Amino acid sequence: MTEPLDLTGLQRRLAEFAAARNWQPYHTPKNLAAALSVEASELVEIFQWLTPEESARVMADPSAAPRVTDEVADVLAYLLQFCDVLGIDPLAALDAKIARNERRFPVPGPDDGSAGRERSES
Amino acid sequence: MTEPLDLTGLQRRLAEFAAARNWQPYHTPKNLAAALSVEASELVEIFQWLTPEESARVMADPSAAPRVTDEVADVLAYLLQFCDVLGIDPLAALDAKIARNERRFPVPGPDDGSAGRERSES
Amino acid sequence: MTEPLDLTGLQRRLAEFAAARNWQPYHTPKNLAAALSVEASELVEIFQWLTPEESARVMADPSAAPRVTDEVADVLAYLLQFCDVLGIDPLAALDAKIARNERRFPVPGPDDGSAGRERSES
Amino acid sequence: MTEPLDLTGLQRRLAEFAAARNWQPYHTPKNLAAALSVEASELVEIFQWLTPEESARVMADPSAAPRVTDEVADVLAYLLQFCDVLGIDPLAALDAKIARNERRFPVPGPDDGSAGRERSES
Repeated sequence: MTEPLDLTGLQRRLAEFAAARNWQPYHTPKNLAAALSVEASELVEIFQWLTPEESARVMADPSAAPRVTDEVADVLAYLLQFCDVLGIDPLAALDAKIARNERRFPVPGPDDGSAGRERSES
Repeated sequence: MTEPLDLTGLQRRLAEFAAARNWQPYHTPKNLAAALSVEASELVEIFQWLTPEESARVMADPSAAPRVTDEVADVLAYLLQFCDVLGIDPLAALDAKIARNERRFPVPGPDDGSAGRERSES
Repeated sequence: MTEPLDLTGLQRRLAEFAAARNWQPYHTPKNLAAALSVEASELVEIFQWLTPEESARVMADPSAAPRVTDEVADVLAYLLQFCDVLGIDPLAALDAKIARNERRFPVPGPDDGSAGRERSES
Repeated sequence: MTEPLDLTGLQRRLAEFAAARNWQPYHTPKNLAAALSVEASELVEIFQWLTPEESARVMADPSAAPRVTDEVADVLAYLLQFCDVLGIDPLAALDAKIARNERRFPVPGPDDGSAGRERSES
């Protein structure tokens, strides 16, 4: 694989893959958003009966680990294809969101006992 | 923003953001996978009553477009945090997945009428 | 099957089924909500590449129809188990919600051209 | 409310509600499945940062309890509407599924140490 591993390169390979199979008519933003959510749920499924502690050790389970990696790939694939068809830059979107969240959720001071008591951003 | 817009840089900022607010105890793989799927569903929600044609024009709707971009950022944020806590490289995972799919779904030849008739990879 | 087909009877059979297999420790509200959303996504998966028209004919497809019915059963099963562990009456909840929505979304009059133009309740 | 609280009655009220607002064109099986999964995710969202123990006490939280009941209503509403447009009987579907699962997952005998160690039906 000589192609560099960056989002843009992967996005181009995904677009070529879909085009070569005439899948573009299926790749409406609505369908790609649904497919993204389906793959995210397949990731949830791996964890649904695990305790928090078991979930932290999931990559040590040789039957679960490759499934986790595979679902990560599927989520990223649909996210990139979704962004591609709509002309959205996912890195710029996240950069702007982090900046916004830094203003919305100021870091508590050292004497502020509330730190970590609540977790409610979205 | 002098920090370069790459996944690793964004991932580090997300980790610092969570650490500064003492949110790491909440960020089990199980919880992050759930949060990822919740954000993916918020993206679906924007499209749920749209026709395929309307969904293709969503970025021309000034009330919907920023919501779409915002949900893309949320999905990517949780995906990167999930990968961070489990030590998964999302780009390598997707690269391997595309290579696998290229073998699983060979490009149909010019006379193969089945091209585009079915769409079933996952 | 002499047991009557009502929600309460099905709910009791589901509870007995889980108890006989010692599955109650897994059936926290959090896990059951996740399992419910996973099953709902498996229903979405059946439809994700279909056009609206194809989706309306899904029960005429002998390979898809039993999957649809099966996923409906799974969604209902987890919804009933979720309600059981939390003491929620799903029929009363829906009855109250419909009454609320009837107030929130008054029926448009005969001359009100807006009827059907928007669809935004949740 | 003199109407009896049964699934069929609620299903009829939901159908009348949608018809009075000319919402039927939006209510394709594909869209209703998506809406169902979105509501299931809104239920997950309430639990996403809670520990298993906190999730068991959610109905004692006066800010969370009505949200939980409301999301249960939404999930059931879309499930019933989905079944209505496709002519599926959800109670019969669940009855058949439970019978199938009773064969797939036999109850372990008293000396079978595996009871409860695994939880993998779907």
